[in-house]
Amino acid sequence: MRMIEDHGSFEGRQQVWEHDSRETRTPMRFSVYLPPAAKAGPAPVVWWLSGLTCNEQNFIIKAGAQRYASELGLIIVGPDTSPRGPALDGGEVAGDPDGQGEIGPSAGYYLDATQAPWAPHYRMRSYVEGELPEVVAANFPADMSRQGMCGHSMGGHGALTVSLRNPGRFRATSALAPISAPTKVESGRKRLRAYLGEDEQAWRAYDATCLIEDGGRLPELLVDQGLDDPLMERLRPDLLEAACREHGQSLELRRLAGYGHNYYFVASVIGEHLRWHAERLRP
Amino acid sequence: MRMIEDHGSFEGRQQVWEHDSRETRTPMRFSVYLPPAAKAGPAPVVWWLSGLTCNEQNFIIKAGAQRYASELGLIIVGPDTSPRGPALDGGEVAGDPDGQGEIGPSAGYYLDATQAPWAPHYRMRSYVEGELPEVVAANFPADMSRQGMCGHSMGGHGALTVSLRNPGRFRATSALAPISAPTKVESGRKRLRAYLGEDEQAWRAYDATCLIEDGGRLPELLVDQGLDDPLMERLRPDLLEAACREHGQSLELRRLAGYGHNYYFVASVIGEHLRWHAERLRP
Repeated sequence: MRMIEDHGSFEGRQQVWEHDSRETRTPMRFSVYLPPAAKAGPAPVVWWLSGLTCNEQNFIIKAGAQRYASELGLIIVGPDTSPRGPALDGGEVAGDPDGQGEIGPSAGYYLDATQAPWAPHYRMRSYVEGELPEVVAANFPADMSRQGMCGHSMGGHGALTVSLRNPGRFRATSALAPISAPTKVESGRKRLRAYLGEDEQAWRAYDATCLIEDGGRLPELLVDQGLDDPLMERLRPDLLEAACREHGQSLELRRLAGYGHNYYFVASVIGEHLRWHAERLRP
Repeated sequence: MRMIEDHGSFEGRQQVWEHDSRETRTPMRFSVYLPPAAKAGPAPVVWWLSGLTCNEQNFIIKAGAQRYASELGLIIVGPDTSPRGPALDGGEVAGDPDGQGEIGPSAGYYLDATQAPWAPHYRMRSYVEGELPEVVAANFPADMSRQGMCGHSMGGHGALTVSLRNPGRFRATSALAPISAPTKVESGRKRLRAYLGEDEQAWRAYDATCLIEDGGRLPELLVDQGLDDPLMERLRPDLLEAACREHGQSLELRRLAGYGHNYYFVASVIGEHLRWHAERLRP
């Protein structure tokens, strides 16, 4: 583990660390916010999964979450969104069919790829579900019995699917403008096909609506969606809402006027999400 | 005036505008945060001046100020830090003697240059003191009888010197890790010489300690300085403190443990600064 950054932030520390991942077989970076309360003993952990085009930096620079995490005594851990490295960077080298950055670096989709050329390194599901929690538990004052899961866009997809596949692990799950039904929209189908192949049954573990259709349940779900979001056709909160209604999954879906898909939206609602998590992460 | 960006942010709008400046003779961009209260009528304005390497983006992306401005009902206007354009970009073209980015684009120093090649465009003093306030007054619901002035690093220098040269214009002036005494440190002297020539008398209008020595007074000054700031030798808050003490200028200088020079520091204290401004900007 190598410390890359360490900044004073709201009486706590905003850090970035790098380690050699056994899952991705690359160096991986992640951010950790340590609130002042973590000096006195273990603090609950909220996981933050970022969206397409992001690395571990966007959230810590743009969301303004440290203020709330400091007040609420939450550790926030934010992994990168894909493996990276000389052999992996760039759509062409990495094999993105359209070279549009929708597959490959920054577009790991929080899945374990089974197809060439992705399979050897693109193991973000195993990294986020298995390896990184071990690293965090071993190296930071984290109370792993109190975890929450949150993310934005592609990371909202990650938050929903990781939680639905691991019932009981997270006491709270919420998402901001998540990709909710990738098997049912073309941009999602393109990615799932590239990473997982033609067998659409294998895609269902990476689609929140499918996981709910297949019996996945969480005690609660909080989802915020800006009504000026230009990507609504790719996100399809309506399909998440329909699946939840049909299958008895509790969902609070808030449609918020005036907000887009960007970090100005994330910053505007992250405080309420973290407060919602903190209420559910009390000892 | 051309609208470049317009985002929902904390129930208000974060905008970026561009206009053709008569002072710099270039297109200039500036950010405007409009709080929800500005829908109902004129709101007070806090000016934000950014530091070296910044443009109008850094503050609106990184500082998390919108939350406070929304709550407090403050408009925040943030100009770019220098003129830009094909003929002006790049240390070499622009004539930065060392090519280190300390003079030229992003390093306008909030002064009116008198020396070649800077004089025709580098008129950030006249832009910030004269032209931009006119533009803001004419185009936004701004109550120009209630203005505050704030900035960081080179922008802290700007905030102090603009305020000290315009007594009575700003009801509140504060600075974060400001360059306080540029005539007395080598990095400052290099810039002042490049922009203003060899006559050191002309430099005094752009040095907060000199302005105070020469009789400039403000009702109050609030300055925050992180104690882990690696640029302390260029900032010299101790010289500001000495000048204020010697000449009877009220100063609250807070030295804050654990904070560096970056936007994690800015984000950690901007809420207190905006609250301090808001108290002084009540109708």
